[in-house]
Amino acid sequence: MAERPKVLSRRLAAESRLFRIEQLELEFANGARRTYERLLGGPDSVMVVALQDPQTVLLIREYAAGTERYELGLPKGVVEPGEDPLAAAHRELQEEVGFGARELQIIHRVSLVPGYIQHHTLVVLARDLYPNRAEGDEPEPIEVVPWRLDALDELLVQPDFGEARTIAGLFLAYRFLARERAAGQTPSPSPDEV
Amino acid sequence: MAERPKVLSRRLAAESRLFRIEQLELEFANGARRTYERLLGGPDSVMVVALQDPQTVLLIREYAAGTERYELGLPKGVVEPGEDPLAAAHRELQEEVGFGARELQIIHRVSLVPGYIQHHTLVVLARDLYPNRAEGDEPEPIEVVPWRLDALDELLVQPDFGEARTIAGLFLAYRFLARERAAGQTPSPSPDEV
Repeated sequence: MAERPKVLSRRLAAESRLFRIEQLELEFANGARRTYERLLGGPDSVMVVALQDPQTVLLIREYAAGTERYELGLPKGVVEPGEDPLAAAHRELQEEVGFGARELQIIHRVSLVPGYIQHHTLVVLARDLYPNRAEGDEPEPIEVVPWRLDALDELLVQPDFGEARTIAGLFLAYRFLARERAAGQTPSPSPDEV
Repeated sequence: MAERPKVLSRRLAAESRLFRIEQLELEFANGARRTYERLLGGPDSVMVVALQDPQTVLLIREYAAGTERYELGLPKGVVEPGEDPLAAAHRELQEEVGFGARELQIIHRVSLVPGYIQHHTLVVLARDLYPNRAEGDEPEPIEVVPWRLDALDELLVQPDFGEARTIAGLFLAYRFLARERAAGQTPSPSPDEV
């Protein structure tokens, strides 16, 4: 692997209420210089794969301002300052889906677009759910859509489904569950192979 | 599905050389108002799943300014103004991986983060490759890393691998190939089930 490029300069190029853009002047090991820009990220966010039963994941349909339409995907949210990531996942699950979980675990950490976004998201698997709604800052009630894990091909062709991060999260959970089952750690029925 | 919120106002909140951030004032069907920000996107980008043989995908390891480290992932790039997306995928494949492809097809279109990013990426499957390097604007030679499709679990634990978009792209290609094989459209050997 090559030596990391040297940072010749670094400055805040633009800033809004939510976003900060940094401009970087880099010199690569071979002497080539390039100017890059990246979106600075805060702490990791969380994305929750909540299993209502071993075969069923709880998706949500909510308004997405980026694409200006309602999108089907996994619940997610930011980790508040000082908040434990699992506590943040639990809070988002209660606010957006209306369930608490007795079992929460981080199964992966993904970047969004490493080329120009600093931010990362923790994928959290939630199991042993119980109904428990908490009040969040959602502008309107969120529709919860249970989806069977053995019907991912049908999900992929839904017109309002297509977030790369959600697709990755479902795939990672699926692989995690398959490995867990292969290791014989769970006595409960598990989803079929993807 | 709920009625889309009304856009009360829309303005450019910040701008840099590469990025534009829009601020939106929205009123939801129930009367709730919220201020959102989103990263405006240009035309779709392309991400290429190039199969050297039916079992092997060609990954690249290149410097990612967003996370400030070398990252293992799928080759990708922007579609130039007026350029056909498949031509863009072919160009990026030749520039970043050093291969041309006789067969290119779009298998999916993913959003990155629909909540606050407008941009989408086309996932392009490339097959029937031949060595052909084109000069791009890369600052340094890019390392090409062939990876077997039946070794995705090993890939997921590589410390420099973790882009949600790449994970989604590999998963989508895997499912596409499995469906194609199930339909008996390809006589060549195909990867095992994920």
